[in-house]
Amino acid sequence: MSDIDLLVKNTAEWLRAEGPDHDIVISSRIRIARNLQGFSYTPRLETREQDEIIKRVQDILTKTPSMKSAYFFLYADLTELERQFLVERHLVSLEHAVEKGHKAVSMTPNQEISVMILEEDHLRMQAFQSGFNLKKAWHIIDQLDTEIERGGLDYAFDSRLGYLTACPTNAGTGLRASCMVHIPGLVLTKQINKILQALTKLNLATRGLYGEGTQAIGDYFQFSNQMTLGQNEEEIIDNLVSVIRQITDHEREARQHLLDKKKQKFEDPAWRALGILKSARVISSTEATQYLSLVQLGINMGIMTSALSREELHSLFLYIQPAHLQKMSGSVLNAQERDILRAQVIREKLGKVSLS
Amino acid sequence: MSDIDLLVKNTAEWLRAEGPDHDIVISSRIRIARNLQGFSYTPRLETREQDEIIKRVQDILTKTPSMKSAYFFLYADLTELERQFLVERHLVSLEHAVEKGHKAVSMTPNQEISVMILEEDHLRMQAFQSGFNLKKAWHIIDQLDTEIERGGLDYAFDSRLGYLTACPTNAGTGLRASCMVHIPGLVLTKQINKILQALTKLNLATRGLYGEGTQAIGDYFQFSNQMTLGQNEEEIIDNLVSVIRQITDHEREARQHLLDKKKQKFEDPAWRALGILKSARVISSTEATQYLSLVQLGINMGIMTSALSREELHSLFLYIQPAHLQKMSGSVLNAQERDILRAQVIREKLGKVSLS
Repeated sequence: MSDIDLLVKNTAEWLRAEGPDHDIVISSRIRIARNLQGFSYTPRLETREQDEIIKRVQDILTKTPSMKSAYFFLYADLTELERQFLVERHLVSLEHAVEKGHKAVSMTPNQEISVMILEEDHLRMQAFQSGFNLKKAWHIIDQLDTEIERGGLDYAFDSRLGYLTACPTNAGTGLRASCMVHIPGLVLTKQINKILQALTKLNLATRGLYGEGTQAIGDYFQFSNQMTLGQNEEEIIDNLVSVIRQITDHEREARQHLLDKKKQKFEDPAWRALGILKSARVISSTEATQYLSLVQLGINMGIMTSALSREELHSLFLYIQPAHLQKMSGSVLNAQERDILRAQVIREKLGKVSLS
Repeated sequence: MSDIDLLVKNTAEWLRAEGPDHDIVISSRIRIARNLQGFSYTPRLETREQDEIIKRVQDILTKTPSMKSAYFFLYADLTELERQFLVERHLVSLEHAVEKGHKAVSMTPNQEISVMILEEDHLRMQAFQSGFNLKKAWHIIDQLDTEIERGGLDYAFDSRLGYLTACPTNAGTGLRASCMVHIPGLVLTKQINKILQALTKLNLATRGLYGEGTQAIGDYFQFSNQMTLGQNEEEIIDNLVSVIRQITDHEREARQHLLDKKKQKFEDPAWRALGILKSARVISSTEATQYLSLVQLGINMGIMTSALSREELHSLFLYIQPAHLQKMSGSVLNAQERDILRAQVIREKLGKVSLS
């Protein structure tokens, strides 16, 4: 079995739904941007230099304890479908995967860490954790960063500006902290717009399931810091932690309010969502995500006792994505074929979940 | 158990889904309008005359073989809920039940025949048959009509105009023949509007599930003759039979076309409808009827092998109606309580129907 097939087969560790507040915060992520001293930024590199950077990073990664037994892929060796799969797994960014070119990515088998090489910056390193666990993710990535520097990689660094990055919005710490949250309570009680406005004022960004440029679907949102400069890493993370803590508190209040006063707002929709998922013969990923969101709410609200673990439910979000479906089935499928296969995968997975 | 409770408990014979073409024609109905010689029409009767007509008809009915062991109800003895129940059972017309007043109705225990007394006309007699069976229904009602005349009731009759009726649109034969048809194939293939236009030109009326003034829901239509004068009973019936025959032929072609070429038009919607019915916790009767219609199509198209008989499915259409739900539960319920109970009744009934 190839390394990529192993990745397909194994769910990401951060989907195990075990961390703190995992009923609201699906996952926490920290990524840092780094560039190598003595080279231009990625877009202006010669092929020879690209090769040299990839080679140099690969050599060091193989020696760092954090990336022990990590997979390493040159983009040139991957099909478009495989690159799309890595996007769905959140292991590479959408832009990174779509552009052709001389790039590479390395990730640990449990998919907790991935290192993208020659994306917008020479290095983009990210660590994922299940639940609300930004500190742990930061600890992991900070450790990796130290190991790489110890390994002999010289970062482009300015004593006044901090780490230098291709885009100035990343300069300084080069750090982006984000949490993927499921907040149907705030959506159903119509508090979401007020909250999104407040986040904008706090200089936090709101995105959908697949990061920059994607829309929120099924009440899943990704919140992250915009500012990377003027605060140190701990301050940036503490700031996001404190905002997400407020959001989880509000979401919990909203859920309790719904449970006490407005059960009809979610009870019937959640059961119907499960009924549709268990019966549909054709379903798009957007529609499926919306229904899975309602089922997840139903389970979290205790109205459905699910024979399905939270991890299985979270994994389902991944396995119904286009590239996942195609990698699992072993064939290239058009949109309609995917919608049929998706419905089948969901029916099989939810077969054991009772409607009563 | 009261007579009305016995009616609630027993499904109507014409729902047994056994007659010819029962996959398309749910039921056939013939009703005739008659008035008694020597009395004004219903709206201008004195109470004393109303009593006399009710008494006279009741006396004769008890002696007619067709109405042997029939139930007999004075409207004054029925609650509003019970009258509404009789409407849902198609045993009295909507207008007849809603108006207060001195009226009565008699029906056979199998609900094949009902006789409404002091509706728009003094007598409205109707016979129902399962499937496409207008001739049989006509035979039954013709027999009853003869028995009543033999019993000594003098009908208002004019040798030139035929039977005289309160509204001239019923004069002549006083006969209305109708079929309740389920034609989702013609709706899905968008032929329905053309057909409804053609029916209007042929002087046939189109109505919904509950007769005059009701809308078609879930692709169930009721087609009937408009003309009662200028043709004899057999001609009126033959004419409707020939039109309904064409409609069933077209519906069958449409279903075959869908099955061969456009399975996606009904397969996924039919399964989803079943999924929603098996899972919903709150559902209106209109919504439930629409989904049941899709399930019925799925069963008739052979895509679902139902653990539910056609008769059980047809009965479900009755038992989810407001008055049926309340009579079954033994309590007066508001709209929301009914929607919750309806969902529960459907879930119980469809519990044994598999989603695969």
